[in-house]
Amino acid sequence: MSVDPSREGRASGATRPHFRQVALIGIGLIGSSLARVLRREKLADRIVACARSESTRSKAMELGLADAVTADPAEAARGADLVVLCTPLGAYADVMAAAGPVLAPGAIVTDVGSAKVCVLRDVAPHLPKGVHLVPAHPVAGTEYSGPEAGFAELFEGRWCILTPDAGADDAAVETVAAMWRRAGSRVERMDAKHHDLVLAVTSHLPHLIAYNIVGTAADLETVTESEVIKYSAGGFRDFTRIAASDPVMWRDIFLANREAVLEMLGRFNEDLARLQRAIRWGDGETLRDLFTRTRRIRREIIDSGQAGPPQEKPR
Amino acid sequence: MSVDPSREGRASGATRPHFRQVALIGIGLIGSSLARVLRREKLADRIVACARSESTRSKAMELGLADAVTADPAEAARGADLVVLCTPLGAYADVMAAAGPVLAPGAIVTDVGSAKVCVLRDVAPHLPKGVHLVPAHPVAGTEYSGPEAGFAELFEGRWCILTPDAGADDAAVETVAAMWRRAGSRVERMDAKHHDLVLAVTSHLPHLIAYNIVGTAADLETVTESEVIKYSAGGFRDFTRIAASDPVMWRDIFLANREAVLEMLGRFNEDLARLQRAIRWGDGETLRDLFTRTRRIRREIIDSGQAGPPQEKPR
Repeated sequence: MSVDPSREGRASGATRPHFRQVALIGIGLIGSSLARVLRREKLADRIVACARSESTRSKAMELGLADAVTADPAEAARGADLVVLCTPLGAYADVMAAAGPVLAPGAIVTDVGSAKVCVLRDVAPHLPKGVHLVPAHPVAGTEYSGPEAGFAELFEGRWCILTPDAGADDAAVETVAAMWRRAGSRVERMDAKHHDLVLAVTSHLPHLIAYNIVGTAADLETVTESEVIKYSAGGFRDFTRIAASDPVMWRDIFLANREAVLEMLGRFNEDLARLQRAIRWGDGETLRDLFTRTRRIRREIIDSGQAGPPQEKPR
Repeated sequence: MSVDPSREGRASGATRPHFRQVALIGIGLIGSSLARVLRREKLADRIVACARSESTRSKAMELGLADAVTADPAEAARGADLVVLCTPLGAYADVMAAAGPVLAPGAIVTDVGSAKVCVLRDVAPHLPKGVHLVPAHPVAGTEYSGPEAGFAELFEGRWCILTPDAGADDAAVETVAAMWRRAGSRVERMDAKHHDLVLAVTSHLPHLIAYNIVGTAADLETVTESEVIKYSAGGFRDFTRIAASDPVMWRDIFLANREAVLEMLGRFNEDLARLQRAIRWGDGETLRDLFTRTRRIRREIIDSGQAGPPQEKPR
């Protein structure tokens, strides 16, 4: 692959990487969105998509997301100068045990997973000498899954975090960074361990809490499920959206980022116990103080352009 | 007031109530949205808005939401055939101690609060004989506050729950129901205690959790606030939206619905402890089972039309 500094194509002026063959291992929401970016930006001569299920493979072909499909990671990786792991995290080790040995020196392996310490652990041992590992995490998503759920604009304005280790090849890191910039993302480099801590609080804990409250609501005997659904506009529905994210992907995230998630959950529980006590004892001041403080954070998120579209017509 | 069965005006065919004077006590997001409905549907000859702050009162006049404004609940209520309490719940008792005595027999007092057992407790004692109490809860809102944040379409397609007690006047209940139908809402009658239980899970607990997680994130030493904000698109930002709701309004809701909130919070905590244990011990099956179950609930909410707009372009 190469990085074309002529900067043609995108108004953003980002340089354009070019790949002979990109192997997308997994072609769900993120993999298929990336495939659409690769097509739109003409970054790859050839895309090979790997998926276990026959229906996903034929859907990927039907949508023009790949030039070839296979169920075999090694077949997808053979001849690839870029391999992108887009499966749930729990599959990385097996996939790379199969695909690693066929890679030629100079190839780059990257991924899109939501935890990063585990990538170095699960992927690095399977890479031949001269193959570069550049773990990446595009912080973007929807609650929909599958190749038909993807869209090229998914990454626009969102952050993509790269977590190569200290000795990583600079050119390989820059190539992956350039690809994500072509997707419209802002790119940041971060230590893998710190990434996992940051994402534990901004993404993993919110998902855990959302899954949990939806489960709690579904199990009530005193309130029917149809009542929960009817009156969900009071706040609950926003949690159900998050709790509709892919079950296997999220199982793997919690298992892969166990330590950081448990640390954040411990703090969450302490803070919640304090609120519980404030409610029980009628301590309105504690409640109001917190609720005033949290409002400011929302304003900062809006100012930073990360708020997403309004949930209701704002006025 | 009267209910005009000629059904003119709205395509929905809902009957049209008519009021000589509506007193809106509080003119924030909900009060001002209701004022806009009253104007659009021509349901009131005269609207008097009561607000404590001078800037809110002049904003209400400037926006044409009221024909007169006052800081005195009694002044607003004098001559009113409909009084709508749109203040935080904690103000109801004081407001009605002032406004109740001036009401004439036949007048209706209603409200828009998110807890309902407390309304019977705080309002009923202040009502002269012949004045009807019809507590109501339009299950709708945004994270914005103040008279300029309101809009007439806020209630469209949303549920409005009425919780009059068993002996309430049928005609008064129907008048309030008709008003909310003109706002585009679907109206349901429910026991106040059951309402408080249902809303504890569909609205109050989600808000408490959201406030709490945003507070937890803000207090971290290992992750900076700017990191939390930058990477909030991973799920956190949806919680900040909820946690930006009005602090005083929400303080009062938790204090007013203490029992039901603590009951739901207890269940939530038990369930969360189970998930915490599953993560600690690497029990992926428990995680995946729950995450699969919660996905179905989201689908039902979408099918019921209560999902709101998509958070990202869906494809």
